Amino acid sequence: MKNLICFISVLLATAAFAADSLPSWNEGETKTKLLRFITEAQIEGSDGYIMPSDRIATFDNDGTLWSEQPMYFQLIFILERVTILAPENPAWKEQQPFKAVLEKDRATMKTFGAKELSELMAATHAGMTEEEFADIVIEWMQTAKHPTTGKLYTEMTYQPMKELLQALRDGGFKTYIVSGGGISFMRPWVKEVYGIPPEQVVGSRIKVEYEVVEGKGMIRRTGEIDFIDDKEGKPVGIYQVIGKRPVFASGNSDGDFQMLEYATTGEGPRLGVILHHTDAEREWAYDRDSHIGKLDRGLNEATARGWIVIDMKNDWKTIFGE
Amino acid sequence: MKNLICFISVLLATAAFAADSLPSWNEGETKTKLLRFITEAQIEGSDGYIMPSDRIATFDNDGTLWSEQPMYFQLIFILERVTILAPENPAWKEQQPFKAVLEKDRATMKTFGAKELSELMAATHAGMTEEEFADIVIEWMQTAKHPTTGKLYTEMTYQPMKELLQALRDGGFKTYIVSGGGISFMRPWVKEVYGIPPEQVVGSRIKVEYEVVEGKGMIRRTGEIDFIDDKEGKPVGIYQVIGKRPVFASGNSDGDFQMLEYATTGEGPRLGVILHHTDAEREWAYDRDSHIGKLDRGLNEATARGWIVIDMKNDWKTIFGE
Repeated sequence: MKNLICFISVLLATAAFAADSLPSWNEGETKTKLLRFITEAQIEGSDGYIMPSDRIATFDNDGTLWSEQPMYFQLIFILERVTILAPENPAWKEQQPFKAVLEKDRATMKTFGAKELSELMAATHAGMTEEEFADIVIEWMQTAKHPTTGKLYTEMTYQPMKELLQALRDGGFKTYIVSGGGISFMRPWVKEVYGIPPEQVVGSRIKVEYEVVEGKGMIRRTGEIDFIDDKEGKPVGIYQVIGKRPVFASGNSDGDFQMLEYATTGEGPRLGVILHHTDAEREWAYDRDSHIGKLDRGLNEATARGWIVIDMKNDWKTIFGE
Repeated sequence: MKNLICFISVLLATAAFAADSLPSWNEGETKTKLLRFITEAQIEGSDGYIMPSDRIATFDNDGTLWSEQPMYFQLIFILERVTILAPENPAWKEQQPFKAVLEKDRATMKTFGAKELSELMAATHAGMTEEEFADIVIEWMQTAKHPTTGKLYTEMTYQPMKELLQALRDGGFKTYIVSGGGISFMRPWVKEVYGIPPEQVVGSRIKVEYEVVEGKGMIRRTGEIDFIDDKEGKPVGIYQVIGKRPVFASGNSDGDFQMLEYATTGEGPRLGVILHHTDAEREWAYDRDSHIGKLDRGLNEATARGWIVIDMKNDWKTIFGE
C-alpha cells in the first residue's frame, strides 16, 4: 500500500512539475525520464529519493552546455591571443603548435588534442594576475563572434540544457560544471549564463602563485599546466573539488565517459545523460568519427548502462532559444 | 538623510541579530565587530553591504575550529596508523620520520613541519579507495580519545566558532574550510560537526587515480603528495577550488597569514579574524614561540591591518560547549 501511494505521488508530482519545466523539450521518453528522476529525488519514500546533501549534478561544458564546432571556443579564444602575442614571441613561427595557429593551418589544428590545447593555454594564458585574465575573458565574451553563426559565444549555449540545469536546482540539486576547458576561462561568465557560480566550476588549470603587489595579495598565473580535467581526469577533478560521487552526470563525448561511469556506478538512484549531436541543420551532427567531441564508446554502452541519450534533433524544440 | 537611515537600520538590525547569535561569546568589542560585519553585509545601501554571491567566508581548521595541541589531531591519527602498518614496513624502524613515531620520540616529532607531516600522510593514507579511507576516518572520529582531555576529537571543536559559522550562514555567507590538513581526513565529518558540506573543504591532498573495479568506478589513493594547503598555498587552494577572493577569513597561526592578507586586501568590506590561544586553563595558551600554530607576524600586524584578534580567555564563555 505504501508503495502504491508513493507511485501515485510520483506520477502526480511529475505531471505537475512537467507543466512548468523544460519548455524547450519535446514531449517524449527523454523528457519524461529526466523529469521523473528529478521529481522522485525529492519524494521521501520513493525508490528514486536522494538525500538533499547527495544531490550533486555535474555537466561537461563544451558540446554539452554550448557548441564546440568548428573547434572548442576556448581554442578560438586562444588563437586570437596567439596572434596578439606573436610579435613578442618570434620563435613561435617555427614551433608547433604555435606555427599552425599563425599560419592558419587548419588541417594541423584539427589534430590538436588535450596536450596541444594545454600548451597553447599555458603560453597564452599566463603572466598576468587571475583578475586581469578574467577581464580579458569577459571582454572577449562580450564582443567576439562565432566564425559561422556570427553569434556571441554566450548565445550559443543550449536553451534546453539551461532549463535542465534550472529544473535540477529547483529540485534541490547543486549543479557543477566539470569541463576539459580552463576554470579561469569559464568562471567569469558561467553564473550569468548558466546560473552556476564560479565556485562550482571544475576544469583544467594552470599553476598559479601567490604574490603581494603594493600590499595587495594577488594570484599570478604561471605558464605551467597543473591539471587536465578530461577522461579519467574528470573523476579526479571531482575528488579534488567536490569530494562526493555525483548522482547525475551529463556529457556529450567519450571524454565524459569516466565521469558518467563514476556517477552512475554508485549506490542508489543515479542518472547518466549523453547529448548526441544529431542536428546538422540547426547545430552540427557528429559522433564516432569526429576529431572534436568524439562519441563512440558512449553510444555503444549507453543502453546497457541505462544512460539517456538525448537526440538533439528530435528532443529539442530549440537549440539556442529565441 | 539616506546615510542616517542606513546607520539607524544597521544599529537596529545588529541589536536584533545580537539577541539570538553568538550566545557563547561575551559581550564586548570582538562580538560587536563580528555581528556588525555580518549584519551590514546584508543591508543594501550600507557601507558594509556585500553582494550575496561575494559572501565567501574561509576558516582554517586546526587551532581555529578545533584544538591542535599537543599536536595536530591528524598527526595523532597518522601515528596510530603508522603503528598499525609498521609490521608491513620493516624499513620504517630506521627511517625518519617513521622512526621517531615508532619510538615515541616526542622531541623529534615536535620538530615535524608540513614536509614530515606530508610524508607520513602519504605513507599511511594511501593504497585504499577514497571511500575505504573515509570509513577509517569515521571510525577513528567516533572512538579515538584525546590523550590529555579524554574527549572525542569532535568534542574538541570550538562552540563559539560553530556559532560564528552558523551566524555567517544565516547572513547568506557560504562557509568554507581552508586547512593545511588533508581534505579526505576532514570531508567525512565536517558536515555533521560544523555544518560545512564536504564540497566546501579546501585542504592538502594526495594524488588519486580513477580505476574501475568489477564495473564500479573508484578513486584510488596513491602515495604521492599533490598539494600542500599552507601559507602561500592557501590562496592557491582557494583559486583551485573556490575561484573567488573571500571577504572573510579566519585563522590562528602564521600559516593563515597569506589567506587573511588575500581576503582583506580586495575591494569593499572585508574582515580578517585571528583566534589567539590565551586560555591555558580551559584550552592552551601559545603564540610566538610555539612549534604548532606559531603566531608571530599575525600578532604584529593585526592592528594595522584592521584584523580582529579573538582573545579566547576573555571573549569566550565556553570553549567546547556543554
